[in-house]
Amino acid sequence: MTQPPLPRDATLADIGEFGLISRFNFPQSDAVFLGPGDDAAVVRTRSHVVVSVDMAVEGRHFRRDWASAHDIGREVAAAALADIAAMGGVAHSMVVALGAPPTLSAQWALDLAAGIGEEAGLAGASVVGGDVTQASQVVISVTVMGGCELAPVTRAGARVGDVVALRGRQGWAAAGLAVLSRGFRSPRAAVAAYARAEPPYEAGLQAAHAGATAMIDISDGLVSDLGHIAEASGVCIDIDSALLSVDDILESVGAALGIAPLTFVLGGGDDHPLAACFAHSDVPEGWVVIGRCVAGAGVLVDGAQYDGAAGFTHF
Amino acid sequence: MTQPPLPRDATLADIGEFGLISRFNFPQSDAVFLGPGDDAAVVRTRSHVVVSVDMAVEGRHFRRDWASAHDIGREVAAAALADIAAMGGVAHSMVVALGAPPTLSAQWALDLAAGIGEEAGLAGASVVGGDVTQASQVVISVTVMGGCELAPVTRAGARVGDVVALRGRQGWAAAGLAVLSRGFRSPRAAVAAYARAEPPYEAGLQAAHAGATAMIDISDGLVSDLGHIAEASGVCIDIDSALLSVDDILESVGAALGIAPLTFVLGGGDDHPLAACFAHSDVPEGWVVIGRCVAGAGVLVDGAQYDGAAGFTHF
Repeated sequence: MTQPPLPRDATLADIGEFGLISRFNFPQSDAVFLGPGDDAAVVRTRSHVVVSVDMAVEGRHFRRDWASAHDIGREVAAAALADIAAMGGVAHSMVVALGAPPTLSAQWALDLAAGIGEEAGLAGASVVGGDVTQASQVVISVTVMGGCELAPVTRAGARVGDVVALRGRQGWAAAGLAVLSRGFRSPRAAVAAYARAEPPYEAGLQAAHAGATAMIDISDGLVSDLGHIAEASGVCIDIDSALLSVDDILESVGAALGIAPLTFVLGGGDDHPLAACFAHSDVPEGWVVIGRCVAGAGVLVDGAQYDGAAGFTHF
Repeated sequence: MTQPPLPRDATLADIGEFGLISRFNFPQSDAVFLGPGDDAAVVRTRSHVVVSVDMAVEGRHFRRDWASAHDIGREVAAAALADIAAMGGVAHSMVVALGAPPTLSAQWALDLAAGIGEEAGLAGASVVGGDVTQASQVVISVTVMGGCELAPVTRAGARVGDVVALRGRQGWAAAGLAVLSRGFRSPRAAVAAYARAEPPYEAGLQAAHAGATAMIDISDGLVSDLGHIAEASGVCIDIDSALLSVDDILESVGAALGIAPLTFVLGGGDDHPLAACFAHSDVPEGWVVIGRCVAGAGVLVDGAQYDGAAGFTHF
């Protein structure tokens, strides 16, 4: 449908729910049998559907003064898409619900949608439907569906003797958050990392093919999320901090703010790298071994209890 | 996992995200390959997935002083489940995201979850995953997935000459809302209807088997939602008000509040009956013919423009 140009200052109240929805423009892949616009969408699948939902709330997961609508869209989509990769799955479709105040800029909502659609496309998924409604703060719920070529890789299959490996950036978003929280806007690479995750989507299926015994995406913090694998698998995970990559950007933010840069790596969330356990000989290309599974429970760092902040707490 | 009993006044902040999640108890059907607790859930399907998302916001879609948590859960689940039925589909799984203030009673959240699970069960679906996060008001996002035994019934297939038929209660929720909005708590049947929809889930597949040419669930209002079929199909829908069932409860609420009871039927939402178009000879049992498709555009009532409130506006 061709739409009249959007007045620059138009709010959601000005253009209405259907005025907004009709301006969304999500590319549809061949897997989509019926896209947005009906009571429900229809997606072609083979034998299984992998599904996950994430909700992001203004002031809690993002701030409109810290990131653009487009980056917020990419980030909230990435968080949900990474969950599908963490099962060894490949995302094919997504539905999005947006709650927002009527005074919200309509262009902001369109930019958000564009960011969501762009990130979905990076993972090979189409936005096939959604819901828009009024709320007192901006709330975005993203549900992603995907397929599993192999058996899904859960959190529960790690065995004593497996190595633990990581693929993707870790700690950058936490460094960016630390910078922003102190009122700074640089280094820009850290701020940009906070605004936008870059999950290694293809690495999930890669790990499944390589025989990963357990996998998770690091969304709340490395120590706390590896704790989920440890608990589900009945093992203890011992992280060797010497194996963790502490990138230059983390060193420089840490030095500027007086924070040990390893803190960002161990406790930081929002980067959505994948962590997986493998038999030692199975670690695929691009993955970095960071520790091992031993008998016991919980997560250790260099053989000892970690006493820093392990990760994000939701309440 | 066995949980310690929940202290009566426990809030979400007291028990935390994982304390809450571990107390959810959603039955899992045979279609569920992997249920809650991992990065994503895995559901067995055949060839297509029908998917829809609905977001409900406190103060906008429900009020905690007007309905119990259990009823609110049933209602928000029903709204999403009805969308799957409206495609001629059968729901098999659901993921739910909850945003809530930390001061929310943990028991309230558990009762909400129980209501969601109960309604999902009525439609044959399992709650397979979700997300819980902090928000300034209670926000619930429900994504339902289902299968299509036949080709999905869209809004776009109605033809001039088709009849329009309705199945399920219509107008009761609007009557209940009118009662509550004036500060009354009775008649209780109307208040209960506002609190809890009863969509005719099985009627969606029934209509598809009978050859329905178009179908929708009435969530915002009869006139406004039939307008979506009229627009998508390129027909005009003429409602014959003499064919509309104006139940006794609507008469009595209308008389008490000085509202024409037909207003509840034509403009009311939230009951989620199904409306579908059929060739005249195809109308299946339990469906009530309420009008017909004629050449033109939009929705008429008794051949004339309807000048009452057609339905709910989101912004």
